[in-house]
Amino acid sequence: MTNYKHIFSQAIDRLHTEGRYRVFIDILRNKGAYPNARCFHGHNGPKPITVWCSNDYLAMGQHPKVVAAMEEALHDVGAGSGGTRNIGGNTHYHVDLEAELADLHGKESALLFTSGYVSNEATLATLAKLLPGCIIFSDELNHASMIAGIRNSGCEKRVFRHNDVEHLRELLEAEDADAPKLIAFESVYSMDGDVAPIAAFCDLADEFNALTYCDEVHAVGMYGARGGGITERDEVAGRVTIIEGTLGKAFGVMGGYIAADQMIVDCIRSYAPGFIFTTSLSPVLVAGVLASVRHLKASSEEREGQQAAAALLKRLMAEAGLPVMPSVTHIVPLMVGDPVKAKKISDILLAEYGVYVQPINYPTVPRGTERLRFTPGPAHSEAMMRDLVSALVEIWSRSELELKKAA
Amino acid sequence: MTNYKHIFSQAIDRLHTEGRYRVFIDILRNKGAYPNARCFHGHNGPKPITVWCSNDYLAMGQHPKVVAAMEEALHDVGAGSGGTRNIGGNTHYHVDLEAELADLHGKESALLFTSGYVSNEATLATLAKLLPGCIIFSDELNHASMIAGIRNSGCEKRVFRHNDVEHLRELLEAEDADAPKLIAFESVYSMDGDVAPIAAFCDLADEFNALTYCDEVHAVGMYGARGGGITERDEVAGRVTIIEGTLGKAFGVMGGYIAADQMIVDCIRSYAPGFIFTTSLSPVLVAGVLASVRHLKASSEEREGQQAAAALLKRLMAEAGLPVMPSVTHIVPLMVGDPVKAKKISDILLAEYGVYVQPINYPTVPRGTERLRFTPGPAHSEAMMRDLVSALVEIWSRSELELKKAA
Ligand SMILES: Cc1ncc(COP(=O)(O)O)c(C=O)c1O
Ligand SMILES: Cc1ncc(COP(=O)(O)O)c(C=O)c1O
Repeated sequence: MTNYKHIFSQAIDRLHTEGRYRVFIDILRNKGAYPNARCFHGHNGPKPITVWCSNDYLAMGQHPKVVAAMEEALHDVGAGSGGTRNIGGNTHYHVDLEAELADLHGKESALLFTSGYVSNEATLATLAKLLPGCIIFSDELNHASMIAGIRNSGCEKRVFRHNDVEHLRELLEAEDADAPKLIAFESVYSMDGDVAPIAAFCDLADEFNALTYCDEVHAVGMYGARGGGITERDEVAGRVTIIEGTLGKAFGVMGGYIAADQMIVDCIRSYAPGFIFTTSLSPVLVAGVLASVRHLKASSEEREGQQAAAALLKRLMAEAGLPVMPSVTHIVPLMVGDPVKAKKISDILLAEYGVYVQPINYPTVPRGTERLRFTPGPAHSEAMMRDLVSALVEIWSRSELELKKAA
Repeated sequence: MTNYKHIFSQAIDRLHTEGRYRVFIDILRNKGAYPNARCFHGHNGPKPITVWCSNDYLAMGQHPKVVAAMEEALHDVGAGSGGTRNIGGNTHYHVDLEAELADLHGKESALLFTSGYVSNEATLATLAKLLPGCIIFSDELNHASMIAGIRNSGCEKRVFRHNDVEHLRELLEAEDADAPKLIAFESVYSMDGDVAPIAAFCDLADEFNALTYCDEVHAVGMYGARGGGITERDEVAGRVTIIEGTLGKAFGVMGGYIAADQMIVDCIRSYAPGFIFTTSLSPVLVAGVLASVRHLKASSEEREGQQAAAALLKRLMAEAGLPVMPSVTHIVPLMVGDPVKAKKISDILLAEYGVYVQPINYPTVPRGTERLRFTPGPAHSEAMMRDLVSALVEIWSRSELELKKAA
């Protein structure tokens, strides 16, 4: 007879043994004072902390326009949509936001999902199923949500080495020229901070008659003159078949979307269970995102402030000899290489310095590359950064980790 | 060479041919005046309508306590959580709501997801994967999100006839006694309005050493003295292994959850990609749900008003000879049996009577059982119902559909 309790407790024990059992830090941000927050974790009452690992990169979740728009929608139409998009849950806000997002990426159409995860899973699974015999070419570092969509499509999958154009070419050459093909990748890889060679991927797509799918989750709002992402900055948006994004990171709220030709969007809208059979995004959230997207289309101040903050923090860390990874974007990853040490450093930062940065461990990154991942924003001051770097240097010495000689 | 455009346009053409291409009705509710709303669809400017198909069954999306709680959270912490539950997105609201939901169902623990769809998909897929050789027994009318989770688990699946205890027994008997087993079903089936024999399913689970999984999406907030669902009303919550619910229907906001033993919840929390790799629910939504759940634990007024409204509408329809289906719950389905006619009746109701009720067609219900599905609530008055019934009788005659002699 199956002993369920035993199986479940073994599953949990494995995580403890590997040092990757997760304890969630219980926090509340202080609106208007971000990155300041309160931590409820293991204290008597809340303790003030500074957040260094939020993906609300531009602090748009606290922007007065966003807050005002949400408040207005809350009073105008109420909390939830009350239905799926097809059955009562299609509000005028949804229609407006889809038009706004289509325009952001210069596409005919856009479609909202409850999250970026769901947009990837639902779109990739459905798209590939609609194309009989489709082969999906997937970057080896693609996000879990893309991997889920690809697996759930049931299609053949070929994994190419991270950002490796030549390897992708080899894999494309090996397949039947007549088979439908889809190349799936991210623009900014959020744990390393590197960027995909999108134009080169599109050249291959042209040559081999493949569709392209680009996850811009860590780039929308952040890159390009209007926040259209790396595809806008690199002027390749028109060449990518489907652009996918989130509303929960730079836009500061919650939700996900795709933008593409009207026909493709209509197919996903009509066939994807993950889109059809679920209560639509709350109109309150949609109203907030509308304000956020419109603001970031017109204002580059937040983007520039964020890039400046990231560049400064990288410089200060490198000068102090800390093992900051070579990121060409706004992400500042600090390599530790061990899950137990990464967790310990993070614990000391929180307990002794009031600094909150989450250790990133497997399965989010490969084993042996455990790290701390900092996301400084326009609201992190130079003084905060200098304090952070001294704290890290002190903990590095205390933990007998090596500091590099400054260059 | 694959002609992608052609394949996609054929996929859309199939829907048109079958009369099930969906056009979303573009509406905005009037807060405080629900079920009144505005329709932007094919008009010059918004037109007033009455909504008869919302799943915000108790109008909690417009409850003053819910709106006030959301407004407070919006001002206190901002729009979005800014991260996954593990990386910066675990707020004190999330922790509180999970405790509240665990208590609602008398379980040790609960876990939040971005939607009810995701909670079903992620939990079923992950749970079954953790149990080597698990066989899943699934009711034939289970929701698309459960079917997705079961399929994505990769496990063996046996489908039992809807609510058929004897058929389930036969299927259980046919399998190896030592294999892990999971029985998955809903409590209230939302398209027919019937209820599962949960106690009998639990008896079988005891006899065959199986786990049980009950989707209470259309029952939480609605049944039981505290809104704990059919499992509370029928006093079987303690016997069901995992109870799943939504925060987007009777609770009026958005999101989903499971409640179960601490060990099981910890396994899903630690292993489910659909939980781990996604921005957590906005704290604004979570705050609203907290207010809603707490209110409905203490107040039965909304539940009783809703049941009374549903009973009255069923009676009025039956008296008028309309083919209302025999529902034992709050759902009022009116059988049409043809997708084109169902759509036409719904179009006339909207255009001529300002009544919004969505036709329900395949794949939401089996072909040949297309219907209109009414969800009257405490705010639909008897006068509104009488107007609705006369309109339906008029359209029924006009469309040459049959009216039954009143009993
Ligand atoms: C690359 C990537 N894609 C998709 C997602 C999922 O987006 P969301 O948080 O909106 O579900 C994430 C992170 O959460 C991500 O890092
Ligand atoms: C039975 C059932 N389960 C789950 C869901 C999904 O819940 P949610 O709308 O919160 O995604 C629905 C409907 O949307 C449903 O009807």
